[in-house]
Amino acid sequence: MRFAHTPRLFAVSALCLGAALTLSSNAFADDGFAEYRDQFEPLPALPPIPADNSLTPERVELGNMLFFEPRISSSGVISCATCHNPALGWSDRIPRAVGHEGQVGERNTPTVLNSGFFTAQFWDGRADTLEEQALGPIEADIEMAMSLEDAIERLKEFDIYEKKFAAAFPGDDDPINGDNVAMALAGFQRTLNTPNSRFDRYLNGDLAALDDQEKRGMKSFADSGCVACHSGPALTDSRFYRIQVPGSEDEGRYLVTGDESDRFAFKTPTLRNIALTYPYMNNGATATLEEAVEVMGREMLGREYSSEEVEDMVAFLHTLTGQMPSFEVPVLP
Amino acid sequence: MRFAHTPRLFAVSALCLGAALTLSSNAFADDGFAEYRDQFEPLPALPPIPADNSLTPERVELGNMLFFEPRISSSGVISCATCHNPALGWSDRIPRAVGHEGQVGERNTPTVLNSGFFTAQFWDGRADTLEEQALGPIEADIEMAMSLEDAIERLKEFDIYEKKFAAAFPGDDDPINGDNVAMALAGFQRTLNTPNSRFDRYLNGDLAALDDQEKRGMKSFADSGCVACHSGPALTDSRFYRIQVPGSEDEGRYLVTGDESDRFAFKTPTLRNIALTYPYMNNGATATLEEAVEVMGREMLGREYSSEEVEDMVAFLHTLTGQMPSFEVPVLP
Repeated sequence: MRFAHTPRLFAVSALCLGAALTLSSNAFADDGFAEYRDQFEPLPALPPIPADNSLTPERVELGNMLFFEPRISSSGVISCATCHNPALGWSDRIPRAVGHEGQVGERNTPTVLNSGFFTAQFWDGRADTLEEQALGPIEADIEMAMSLEDAIERLKEFDIYEKKFAAAFPGDDDPINGDNVAMALAGFQRTLNTPNSRFDRYLNGDLAALDDQEKRGMKSFADSGCVACHSGPALTDSRFYRIQVPGSEDEGRYLVTGDESDRFAFKTPTLRNIALTYPYMNNGATATLEEAVEVMGREMLGREYSSEEVEDMVAFLHTLTGQMPSFEVPVLP
Repeated sequence: MRFAHTPRLFAVSALCLGAALTLSSNAFADDGFAEYRDQFEPLPALPPIPADNSLTPERVELGNMLFFEPRISSSGVISCATCHNPALGWSDRIPRAVGHEGQVGERNTPTVLNSGFFTAQFWDGRADTLEEQALGPIEADIEMAMSLEDAIERLKEFDIYEKKFAAAFPGDDDPINGDNVAMALAGFQRTLNTPNSRFDRYLNGDLAALDDQEKRGMKSFADSGCVACHSGPALTDSRFYRIQVPGSEDEGRYLVTGDESDRFAFKTPTLRNIALTYPYMNNGATATLEEAVEVMGREMLGREYSSEEVEDMVAFLHTLTGQMPSFEVPVLP
């Protein structure tokens, strides 16, 4: 009897649990958009932290100093923060980056906000991680234009950097080196996240955080397929797709891999804070979110959105602006 | 009798007061440097505020935004904060300013810290006030390189600037204009002061705030005549003196006034935070404080300082570093 009885108790418990879950799910679903919400993820406060670069306060502080440090550029006036300007959504709001001696690059500056959530870096994915990415702009001739060797020599001139590197990398005999510059910068950047956007509050259960138009925009975004690539917490899959946006001749990822299938392929950009990080596309030639939605519909999805769909999706995209991260402009030596 | 008595009472009172003052003065003078301290002034928390540009929170906030605003440069990447970098003592720590398209100017960037205490602006004094100074770098071809007209048009594109200018200049029908840009920038800059340096604490009665070497440096500075021009709370008289520092062919104030007596004349720079605002002189060709003291002794005072005097004065100059002002990097539209 006891053996026969037990399974029934389990079954009843399971039923009760099921009912409770359904109730809870209904409480969430009362705006009728649950199936769309389920396709998205809220942004965590921190991205994954790699096992070999712990996010210590010492590394973050050092990375913060280095991010604002112009003495690691050959002109002495360009730092990471020049193009990744904290006043401008940690980007620059011009079509293509302006670097050393006013040279204009080929591509639009991506924001560093939430970049710790990406599994590929740069428009062409030539780095996988922030650590691999960090030194690129220092050495690029049209950006900071300084050899890594010279940059390290400059940093070694300052006693305070000797101390800060030693504190951040306590095991190292000679801690001021390129790997550690990259690790400190990557650590700092992993703190530059923008949680608690209205969309996050909505996904976390505050169904009044979006209005009807914004919810319709989310639905259009999901239904028309944008979410296939703009997925995950940062609304990017960090993968590469062929696209030729107006005015671009850039061969994109092909220049990295040499694979014909990568010609004109670019990484899916994050849509987090997209209202702050205009202009758009790899060449920055698209000035407004309205145009950007139209271009993406046409180029990637082969469709013309109605003006109402565009307006709704733009309204939705505005809900992706989160809380700006706190940081301090360091006092440099 | 009463008439005869009263003056004696007064006299006794005056004696007592005199004794009290002497006692108090002795309490201050116990390090033996009172006569030198008397030649200096501590830095107030705020400079004089002009009657026609009240320091309202709205103006300061707007000025803070404009100070970091790169869209009023023709490249879209240069703001006031590019050369007056808050991470670098609100200056740039390179010999001569780098501006539009990497052009290098003739002169070293002066710090904006405590500039509200100056009664002449720029190395050549071509502006008297911060209001007169503010628009110069926007329009200068080698700095931000944007006409004031275009800068105003850019600002008018942003709704938030319409609101912020209206709030800062409530009486104006058309508040986004050049005069108001200048007034807001000047207001913000008047908040960028650095009180409470060790030297200020010393002048205010904390006789242990300087060590013996620093006090000897103060004495040498006063005795050898530096204080004749480096006077007042910001340690500058805002006047002009003929000087030809190594490597400079710059005719200085002569280019402003056309007066032969102004050829090669430059404004006395502030010595507040001088340890942070290297390199030195109008052309930034002097790298260290030691060299700067030697050059000034030779060029302005006609003397060779001993190495001990140089070391003492450099130690003294390091005590002029004050508390950095608080500010926020604005979130720009």
